[in-house]
Amino acid sequence: MNTDARAHGISRRHLLASSAAAAGAAGLGWGGRSLVEQSAASTLPDGQQIVPFHGSHQAGITTPPQAHATFVALDLQPGLDRSLIIGLLKAWTQDAARLAEGRPGLADSEPELAAAPSRLTTTIGLGPAVFEVAGVADQRPPSIAPLPPLPIDDLDPRYSGGDLLLQVCSDDPLVVAHAVRILARSVRSLATVRWTQRGFREARGSHPEGHTMRNLMGQIDGTNNPKPQDPGFEQALWHDDPAYPWLRGGTSMVVRRIAMDLDTWDELGRRDRELSIGRTLGTGAPLTGTREHDPPDFGATDRFGIPIIPPSSHIARARAQAPEEVFLRRGYNYDDPPEPGRTSNSGLIFATFQADIAKQFLPVQQRIAEFDVLNEWTTPVGSAVFAIPPGCEPGDYLGRALLEGSR
Amino acid sequence: MNTDARAHGISRRHLLASSAAAAGAAGLGWGGRSLVEQSAASTLPDGQQIVPFHGSHQAGITTPPQAHATFVALDLQPGLDRSLIIGLLKAWTQDAARLAEGRPGLADSEPELAAAPSRLTTTIGLGPAVFEVAGVADQRPPSIAPLPPLPIDDLDPRYSGGDLLLQVCSDDPLVVAHAVRILARSVRSLATVRWTQRGFREARGSHPEGHTMRNLMGQIDGTNNPKPQDPGFEQALWHDDPAYPWLRGGTSMVVRRIAMDLDTWDELGRRDRELSIGRTLGTGAPLTGTREHDPPDFGATDRFGIPIIPPSSHIARARAQAPEEVFLRRGYNYDDPPEPGRTSNSGLIFATFQADIAKQFLPVQQRIAEFDVLNEWTTPVGSAVFAIPPGCEPGDYLGRALLEGSR
Repeated sequence: MNTDARAHGISRRHLLASSAAAAGAAGLGWGGRSLVEQSAASTLPDGQQIVPFHGSHQAGITTPPQAHATFVALDLQPGLDRSLIIGLLKAWTQDAARLAEGRPGLADSEPELAAAPSRLTTTIGLGPAVFEVAGVADQRPPSIAPLPPLPIDDLDPRYSGGDLLLQVCSDDPLVVAHAVRILARSVRSLATVRWTQRGFREARGSHPEGHTMRNLMGQIDGTNNPKPQDPGFEQALWHDDPAYPWLRGGTSMVVRRIAMDLDTWDELGRRDRELSIGRTLGTGAPLTGTREHDPPDFGATDRFGIPIIPPSSHIARARAQAPEEVFLRRGYNYDDPPEPGRTSNSGLIFATFQADIAKQFLPVQQRIAEFDVLNEWTTPVGSAVFAIPPGCEPGDYLGRALLEGSR
Repeated sequence: MNTDARAHGISRRHLLASSAAAAGAAGLGWGGRSLVEQSAASTLPDGQQIVPFHGSHQAGITTPPQAHATFVALDLQPGLDRSLIIGLLKAWTQDAARLAEGRPGLADSEPELAAAPSRLTTTIGLGPAVFEVAGVADQRPPSIAPLPPLPIDDLDPRYSGGDLLLQVCSDDPLVVAHAVRILARSVRSLATVRWTQRGFREARGSHPEGHTMRNLMGQIDGTNNPKPQDPGFEQALWHDDPAYPWLRGGTSMVVRRIAMDLDTWDELGRRDRELSIGRTLGTGAPLTGTREHDPPDFGATDRFGIPIIPPSSHIARARAQAPEEVFLRRGYNYDDPPEPGRTSNSGLIFATFQADIAKQFLPVQQRIAEFDVLNEWTTPVGSAVFAIPPGCEPGDYLGRALLEGSR
């Protein structure tokens, strides 16, 4: 059963109950055995794990990260109005809810590709232009806009901007490919794909419970991420500004594509790499500790009075310097075919969620941009920002409070 | 434990023994627990499953297909000679053997990314040019050459040809990314990457044992593949021509990239899609049967005398019409970012292994090229052919019999 979910405190019973319910609803079988029979046999394959679509928040945010994610930004076709955007969000809501349960999308020609969702989630975001087109420009929080330029950026329009976002995650890459296709196709008269980024983490089951992922630089990545049980987690994540009541229970999302120069990174000795990060590569422990989750001691010095964790190291620069700076990272590795003459084209799709980009995300990014040794091997090449509406209940659709709510 | 391996008759004890041995050899740990401790606890995570590198045949051929595969074709730099090709193959052999066991490559800066191999295999192939450069042109079997042009082809040089091939497979995409990088980098002064194709199947554990994969057209794909216990399997797969003794125990490989036009495929009704394939989409059973592995009855007709499986259907055209035409398919789905204006860029990396391309592979391909309804929705856009040397024992290197053997 789902080790990730257990590690993150999600009820195993809940997942099993959802799976069994979905099995009854779907009624699709493999090779003659129905899902119901398999559920009864209590040897449900991992493909039948389900993350509920409906709820007060969208899925795919606090969901323990699945092994695969595809991020798709779309641009609205010219000439749309509010009613067409409502239609688009209704179509996506219906399909996303069905696909999460292992049921085919409404116009799905390949229902079998939907039948083993493997914790499929679809998270839907609204880029800055949606507010204008829908005639609700006054409801756009100011930080739902392109980030201010940072000196470290070398942005490529192929990975930047976008009017709408789909974040589709599952532990199974076939499920992701199918869901992305169904969702992009169902709205193709209204929106066209602007960019697609495919990411991955370690496969389901590769590591013991509680394992933090590694990125392609070899670092353990995400140790210091806030956890749902942390004090202040809810406030850091969910929007609650009375000026934008439609976004209450929603959040905002930043998607940055961070290219890694692995060729020069590899030329650096192991100790220098550890000093650049501020953590050991083997265990991920801070240089002042022995275990991954030991709190870093930024004040500790060696016998010459030199800080053990260099002030220029990534963890020294990237840490939240105040509780207000905490945000949730949900990143994925990317590894695309190399450009001619190179041996790799790799990096991180750095996806973050936070109630307020200006207060939480930007101070940290500006500190990193100002100085962080790791900048020598990493370059932001893509950047996009989206409002993430709250979740919805069955029968409702995502974004209704913005588009037809009593604001 | 490894359900794929059980389904394909590979000894569970063997895998466990290999894993424990590798754990002792590697000595890398996560979060303070060593692999040895974890092995002793008999809750070895799936990442510790190992496929032995050494043996009479290369791994990654009869290995039950892992969830992820990256195919990399490389071109030799100008001015190489036999001794440098020997050096390249020695370097790859050493690194591939180490990586399979969860040990880092010899010049590996990120040993932690190698520590959970998840059935990692590296299969090494030699393209036509290697024989010339190494001065052993007389040892190239005539069918190790580009395939004769087929009328259905629309080949793109971005996915065709190549002097060397790496097929790197694992159930974990992070492991594949790392291994590909280590192997490509270790020979970068001798060979440059010509093309890279990344493929996937359903994730490890998504489906019950014995499940055949689905491709992105929704079809169950590979039902009729020969199995190691089938009579004639060894003869179909392994080369045994006395004219080329260096290739005894080796095979040949064809890598074709088959683009699928999913937009028009989806416009076809379900029944028409089933008639095009000759199988039902739900179970994969032939139209004359009820279960996936029922043998198709190509002679069966309906009450009007019309064949139930259309003679133009894919299974009617693609089936081996003689025992000599059997070959092993080991395909992977691909799903790359769509070209502008399209909703998908998907298809199949059709990788096949056979003792003799001319006798086994070509007759089937020519029959398909001549006529197969499925051609309306599929287009070969890439094609490459490689000799796959036999496996080797510890201390030896792949290809030695060709390059320094008594031929």
